[in-house]
Amino acid sequence: MEKFNKIPEPTIQRLPLYYRCLAEFKESDREIISSEDVASKIPGMKASQFRKDLSYFGEFGVQGMGYVVTHLLDRISSILQLNKMHFVVLVGAGNLGSALVNYGGFRHWGFHITRIFDTNLDKVGRKLGDIVIEDAARLPLRLDASMGIIAVPPAAAHDTARLLVKSGCKGLLNFSGVKIDFPDPIAVRNVDLTNELSILSYKLATFEQVQLQQTTSN
Amino acid sequence: MEKFNKIPEPTIQRLPLYYRCLAEFKESDREIISSEDVASKIPGMKASQFRKDLSYFGEFGVQGMGYVVTHLLDRISSILQLNKMHFVVLVGAGNLGSALVNYGGFRHWGFHITRIFDTNLDKVGRKLGDIVIEDAARLPLRLDASMGIIAVPPAAAHDTARLLVKSGCKGLLNFSGVKIDFPDPIAVRNVDLTNELSILSYKLATFEQVQLQQTTSN
Repeated sequence: MEKFNKIPEPTIQRLPLYYRCLAEFKESDREIISSEDVASKIPGMKASQFRKDLSYFGEFGVQGMGYVVTHLLDRISSILQLNKMHFVVLVGAGNLGSALVNYGGFRHWGFHITRIFDTNLDKVGRKLGDIVIEDAARLPLRLDASMGIIAVPPAAAHDTARLLVKSGCKGLLNFSGVKIDFPDPIAVRNVDLTNELSILSYKLATFEQVQLQQTTSN
Repeated sequence: MEKFNKIPEPTIQRLPLYYRCLAEFKESDREIISSEDVASKIPGMKASQFRKDLSYFGEFGVQGMGYVVTHLLDRISSILQLNKMHFVVLVGAGNLGSALVNYGGFRHWGFHITRIFDTNLDKVGRKLGDIVIEDAARLPLRLDASMGIIAVPPAAAHDTARLLVKSGCKGLLNFSGVKIDFPDPIAVRNVDLTNELSILSYKLATFEQVQLQQTTSN
């Protein structure tokens, strides 16, 4: 197995992009691809970066030929553990939680939300999708889920995180808007959707600037 | 102004992280910070990377002293256009759309959802937050919003994107799960929450592997 712990964080973050890109190539029946093919599908990506990222995990390509799509897809799937089924517990059955339960992408990639908790007793006992909402006051519980999704208001975020970790979750996906940190071996991904809007606003300013330069130079 | 168009994509994507980090330093009344201080707050980040990223935008630090927090925060705020108010239109008033309307982070960073559209006539005329939901069949319309959020089912994603662009949106934040591409000067951010879960699953496997190695070597 690879020396996992030496792999740079940005490389890890690009693996799902590669996986998705390769899955698209497979769907369109491409058998062999080059690193340039991959780079052309991912905005801002360089072929050399792709080759370097892969090199952390071993040898994949064939010199002068490229990469066999199915082989590389299987390997990345295995590195990301997407070849396994993952059970996920969700805390917070509000709008965001409901959206996440219905989010097709999770199940498609092997992530199954199997239990849902909320503190609101009006919601407890009702169903979200196929799952009956349980009382969050019952946590911590022995949960057969390695991952937990935190979709609670900011004030409840840290407590929820602690309860999930006590319940056996090793990975937390946090949508609360409050940053959560845990030392290894607990992994946390703090999702902040505002980052995305600010990247957009940066890009819009860039485009305006480029257009202004073009207008001035004409 | 900076030569915006030469800046690498990963650098752009890190700017919101720096902004957030500096905002935290400001809140805790820190006046001067080092690049190491910033790196220590962002998982997987190196101080040298931070310095290199900033160098694309000019000179910020003072040799042997560090960075003045308020000054650097103002500059990054200006680069990301977070010093301006942005109007955002939302299409899709389902669970995800409702969650986004209530998402405090947007407003806090200057992003204001001002109009909401949906194709479901049962929803049209009702309010989401303070905003009356309008009939999506009215699009394209002249909208005073530079950005649009796509929170519709996959099948409606591409049409929604085209209608938003026709309505004057230059930036699209796409939650549909279907990848949307537009050539410049339209910017698109395709949000895929499954990426986050797969990064978590990778990390959990890493930790297990490290623990296994430790157990074996003991």
